[in-house]
Amino acid sequence: MTIENAIEKVGKILNGRLSTGISIRKQHGTNETYFPEILPDAVAFVNNSKEVSDIASICNQEECPIVAWGTGTSLEGNALAKRGGISLNMMNMNKILKVNSEDMDVVVQPGVTREDLNSFIKDKGLFFPVDPGANASLGGMAATRASGTTAVRYGTMRENVLGLEVVLANGKIIRTGGRSKKSAAGYDLTKLIVGSEGTLGLITELTLKLQGIPESISAAICSFPSVDNAVRTVIQTIQMGIPMARMELVDSQTIEACNDYFNEDMHVSPHLFLEFHGSEDSVNEQSKLVSEIAESFSGSNFKWSSRQEERNKLWKNRHNAFYAVKSKYPEHKAIATDACVPISELANLIDQTAKDIEESGIPGPIWGHVGDGNFHATLLIKKGNLKEKKIAQSIIHRMCERSLELGGTVTGEHGIGMGKLNFMEKEHGYAWDIMTTIKKTLDPNLILNPGKVIKSN
Amino acid sequence: MTIENAIEKVGKILNGRLSTGISIRKQHGTNETYFPEILPDAVAFVNNSKEVSDIASICNQEECPIVAWGTGTSLEGNALAKRGGISLNMMNMNKILKVNSEDMDVVVQPGVTREDLNSFIKDKGLFFPVDPGANASLGGMAATRASGTTAVRYGTMRENVLGLEVVLANGKIIRTGGRSKKSAAGYDLTKLIVGSEGTLGLITELTLKLQGIPESISAAICSFPSVDNAVRTVIQTIQMGIPMARMELVDSQTIEACNDYFNEDMHVSPHLFLEFHGSEDSVNEQSKLVSEIAESFSGSNFKWSSRQEERNKLWKNRHNAFYAVKSKYPEHKAIATDACVPISELANLIDQTAKDIEESGIPGPIWGHVGDGNFHATLLIKKGNLKEKKIAQSIIHRMCERSLELGGTVTGEHGIGMGKLNFMEKEHGYAWDIMTTIKKTLDPNLILNPGKVIKSN
Repeated sequence: MTIENAIEKVGKILNGRLSTGISIRKQHGTNETYFPEILPDAVAFVNNSKEVSDIASICNQEECPIVAWGTGTSLEGNALAKRGGISLNMMNMNKILKVNSEDMDVVVQPGVTREDLNSFIKDKGLFFPVDPGANASLGGMAATRASGTTAVRYGTMRENVLGLEVVLANGKIIRTGGRSKKSAAGYDLTKLIVGSEGTLGLITELTLKLQGIPESISAAICSFPSVDNAVRTVIQTIQMGIPMARMELVDSQTIEACNDYFNEDMHVSPHLFLEFHGSEDSVNEQSKLVSEIAESFSGSNFKWSSRQEERNKLWKNRHNAFYAVKSKYPEHKAIATDACVPISELANLIDQTAKDIEESGIPGPIWGHVGDGNFHATLLIKKGNLKEKKIAQSIIHRMCERSLELGGTVTGEHGIGMGKLNFMEKEHGYAWDIMTTIKKTLDPNLILNPGKVIKSN
Repeated sequence: MTIENAIEKVGKILNGRLSTGISIRKQHGTNETYFPEILPDAVAFVNNSKEVSDIASICNQEECPIVAWGTGTSLEGNALAKRGGISLNMMNMNKILKVNSEDMDVVVQPGVTREDLNSFIKDKGLFFPVDPGANASLGGMAATRASGTTAVRYGTMRENVLGLEVVLANGKIIRTGGRSKKSAAGYDLTKLIVGSEGTLGLITELTLKLQGIPESISAAICSFPSVDNAVRTVIQTIQMGIPMARMELVDSQTIEACNDYFNEDMHVSPHLFLEFHGSEDSVNEQSKLVSEIAESFSGSNFKWSSRQEERNKLWKNRHNAFYAVKSKYPEHKAIATDACVPISELANLIDQTAKDIEESGIPGPIWGHVGDGNFHATLLIKKGNLKEKKIAQSIIHRMCERSLELGGTVTGEHGIGMGKLNFMEKEHGYAWDIMTTIKKTLDPNLILNPGKVIKSN
């Protein structure tokens, strides 16, 4: 029972699609944030569910770790092979298998990216709404329970995955959920797998809910004297039932970076970036109502448009916030983190976190999906500076502790991966033991993404 | 290890709130549909989580079944004590613990009914949208993953339960989820418990999502030459992104019964009953758009109103369909069943089921939550007539088989209970084994609602 044996056996069934070369392993051992490089022992490029099943059987016998790999854009080291073994590259499994226009659902393989899917279904008047920013693979997005800017209207992957095909640790293939919009037939295994970060099974097929492309889309931005005023605007908007498609908060630091990057002159203060979907009349009415609410909370510089070119211009600062910030600090490494609280506590948590960041001397712009109570701090540390890395980690630590005190969660959308494992006990208590029990029952040899999500012995 | 020992021990801690009297046991052994009376050995009236935990510990030691009981309105014998033991009446745990208006959530005990909750929060401009018809307990609604007429807009209990307190079989108390709108922190145990019908844990507290009461509500009805035309209207309405609050199909048989019951003269043909929520302008626009779509599918007699009195008048036939039908067949017992398919297959499944019903000679009106692809057949059999009961069961059997062939599920909202257990293998295949494995891990002595949902040895 060794990793070497597993690699040899898997190599035989993959006919040259398994690599132990250093450059391929390095590609599957890096991450977009601060975790050190961790190389898998081999990378397997799989073509279909049968191969995934065969590989799981072999690895289960040989007790060799398997970690699924998509676009490598996760932010908490979720897809790093912490205990070595085989990185399972799913990107050849990239077929869109069936679009059901009338039912507004689609069946895809896990290596299809969200942008690929959206290009493919656009002509049918449909779109897949979940938008985490990166052009991630849909399998990866389901595995990490991704969400992003549109979750306030359309939900996260939790609400948008109807069914799955999953290869279990023992190589058995199951189907969970299905194509009907709802079901009361037994345990919701779909929702158990979504967000399990590859620790309970390997996703080999997804059935996703789609939306009709709205007749009209309009965008708006507005500045506020404080984060609290911006958040109050959001709370009242949601309470009034205005069906916002996007509600993004961007702090002063980010606005400053965007002004530099795009040579703009936005007022350096917290901003809301808004998007409205609906009929033409409806988006006009929504924009008008929200501008009135914003005004009552001292919002100013409210600009809006439903023309695509102007919309893009309004939103480009939000869409490029990360690049604007990176460009301002070219010698720095970005540590992206997130937390999520009941929205009434959001301004409080952001203010406290911003104060921590200010005191640390580390740049740390904040933006977030404020309609969900979810925000990001992007901490910029000098490359290779371990002292700054420690300071950043202690800021994240305090942010997570406060989030829990305020009734929130340590991650709204990035997942646990390697970065948030230390908070699981505090967030879940004995429920974490139950998660661990379920994991050990379904994967007794702990071959699926070991070292993540559950308690390690 | 006996049920008798458990009852004795539980009796001691409940101080007179445990009954073995026949009339109380009978109240907890009946059901609203066709299952024979099954009496629990005792009924325990619990006041708090600690008592539920203590009872679970005792029953786990004594291997005594426990089945939670709310309002007793489930339709598949979900809360019947199939293997005897203790029926755990949760209706004393009926406190609304905390309303968080800004976050639009509420924390309640499981014995609060949905109407109690809605009365309590009305003054705050909030409502809880899930409406299965019956004034069910919220704990029971979560346990069966209930939904109903508004799920097309607001989702089912799956989407509306944010967090839970759950007593496990071993008596340990866990908290799942929380108050934040989303989380990516570990396995979604909330969604695992919701819909598990009391087989994985006993729900002792719920955190629920609320909605703002819309500024305006309007209602409409419209008749169609066929079920297919009505369903095509619904498909196009959803594809256009019109945010319907309710979309109910009612068949000719039901319309006939309502005409008799209320002395109305509705055209005897399939009808859609519609409800729109939003701003005044928005509901006007929605009604107009839907009336145009309906017209293009030969809809006629489109009537609508946003005045409460007229709205109630329009909808009274849908709301009282069950009573109208029961009144037409006073000597009959109603067997309510449901199935759910991708909406493009709904007209097909309803037509085939209606044909089966017609050929059987049993009255069987059909209505349903057509926006979700979910419908009900209410089969009326003469009381005590075993032959008719068998015929009804064979109609249900064919309906479920077809639903699965069409990519659907054997139950959209009633749950598995005792009535649909035979279809679990066919619907889920090996995934049913995984459900069973999870159950046996969390409840090794099989004390929680035994004989339901999972494979029995």
